[in-house]
Amino acid sequence: MEKTLIFGHKSPDTDTITSAIVMADFEKKLGNDVEACRLGNLNKETKYVFDYLKINAPRLIEKVEEGQNVILVDHNEFKQSVDGIENANILKVIDHHTMDFKTSYQLFYHSEPVGCTATVLYKLYKQNGFEIDKNIAILMISAIISDTLLFKSPTCTDDDVKAVEELNKIAGLDINSYGTSMLKAGTDFSDVSETDLINLDAKEFMIGDIKTVVAQVSTVDIDEMMKRKDKIEDEIKKVIEDKKLGLFLFAITDIMNSNSQVIVLGENSNIVSLAYNVKLENNTAFLPGVVSRKKQIIPIISKVAN
Amino acid sequence: MEKTLIFGHKSPDTDTITSAIVMADFEKKLGNDVEACRLGNLNKETKYVFDYLKINAPRLIEKVEEGQNVILVDHNEFKQSVDGIENANILKVIDHHTMDFKTSYQLFYHSEPVGCTATVLYKLYKQNGFEIDKNIAILMISAIISDTLLFKSPTCTDDDVKAVEELNKIAGLDINSYGTSMLKAGTDFSDVSETDLINLDAKEFMIGDIKTVVAQVSTVDIDEMMKRKDKIEDEIKKVIEDKKLGLFLFAITDIMNSNSQVIVLGENSNIVSLAYNVKLENNTAFLPGVVSRKKQIIPIISKVAN
Repeated sequence: MEKTLIFGHKSPDTDTITSAIVMADFEKKLGNDVEACRLGNLNKETKYVFDYLKINAPRLIEKVEEGQNVILVDHNEFKQSVDGIENANILKVIDHHTMDFKTSYQLFYHSEPVGCTATVLYKLYKQNGFEIDKNIAILMISAIISDTLLFKSPTCTDDDVKAVEELNKIAGLDINSYGTSMLKAGTDFSDVSETDLINLDAKEFMIGDIKTVVAQVSTVDIDEMMKRKDKIEDEIKKVIEDKKLGLFLFAITDIMNSNSQVIVLGENSNIVSLAYNVKLENNTAFLPGVVSRKKQIIPIISKVAN
Repeated sequence: MEKTLIFGHKSPDTDTITSAIVMADFEKKLGNDVEACRLGNLNKETKYVFDYLKINAPRLIEKVEEGQNVILVDHNEFKQSVDGIENANILKVIDHHTMDFKTSYQLFYHSEPVGCTATVLYKLYKQNGFEIDKNIAILMISAIISDTLLFKSPTCTDDDVKAVEELNKIAGLDINSYGTSMLKAGTDFSDVSETDLINLDAKEFMIGDIKTVVAQVSTVDIDEMMKRKDKIEDEIKKVIEDKKLGLFLFAITDIMNSNSQVIVLGENSNIVSLAYNVKLENNTAFLPGVVSRKKQIIPIISKVAN
């Protein structure tokens, strides 16, 4: 039988790439013939992890054929998945996201409300009594550090912290030092254009009837990023016009100190002022303690508009 | 905090009722404050199980309030669930069906491609190292026997068989004797009118552009049920006219010998003749080996029409 392909979402981050590799290891322990794949290029943070471990990236795929057996990790929505997913045969889904999923067949679906897919995978190893190799442990730790910003994100749960503690008995890392270096590696955007910068991690949605984009970029030096403010604003203005947006919020998030500087444009910018009770000066404001788009930005600005 | 309510689907069968009780037991072992509920009356098969164990049925509920914490077992589609489910807070789903599920929040979702929810629950007990009481074991065994027709249904998997084998070390039942009595108890339709009989377990769907209903009833005596054929046909004709159906297939399934007698009406009756290569005499035919609507009826007749 043809190999089952395992992959995470498009625009892959560290959790999605490493979870494909870890799940492939898990499936091999179950005796299944599988291959980890990826749907896009590695970001710099993930490259740091691969360089550290001296391992190669999984194979890049762009589509799957009809009837191809696949396992999805770190996502479930078809729009975030590989081209052709509608006609693939999904055997399993391992995830930690909100759900929007429909099939006409039964499958193995396991999702938990934790900060990272790797935490769910760690539990599967434990439940099955499988040993975890050192490299696999480091991949899982890297994913959890990435998704939880070294446990500082409000998306981080006790299960995520506990998983790293237990995995580090195998990995033997200095978690703080390794995690900081890895996160820092992911914040080097010196060779990324402003056009790409505002699209790297952008999410479009409706606030009432206001078409909104919230984009986010991680940094360890807000001032350095703010030197590019004029060019960033030029690009944002183009997107607002192209997509007929009422609001574009670009969050530059300091992952070391857990704050964000936001650049806000669009005729509905006042929503952000009202939401955080701050004054936008030159289209920007500092939001202390704000790091999570999912928990600290989207719900807050949505509430004002309703 | 308010109790979390646990329930299966509307028109409850044995798996859905017992799984609510078993999941409540499981959650209590996790230290959670929960209550098993049901969304409809017990059928005669389930009553047999409750009489055997001398236990009471869970509380009947018809709707849930906004924000109510709930756990779904044996279903996931909102149209099969309690009224108000859209505004409830779903903490967990434990299931074995095809999926059509969407939330705006993370949750614990676990589904496996097996014959019965009880089989999934059994695995959860094992994974957590929880002991299983004798009554809980009998409830799980009853659900698996019911969903798999004593392992004879093509929906039955090795995991279902293995679960019963292992659970019966605790339960100590004569599986064949208990299962046969339980299944037989569920086939007593002497006090059910023909109107109700054809609606007890009826599924409407499209075969190409032909509006079709396939209804099914379990029996241990096809001849006995066929004595009611004329009255059943009268009721079917009414439904065909009311719903403007092209085809109505009523399967009387002999769960002991794994065969079905079908009564077929509607202007597209020839689809059934073609699908099974049988001649309908007086609107009826015997289909040896056919027991599963999901696996042996709907896909077969759909193929002919395409």
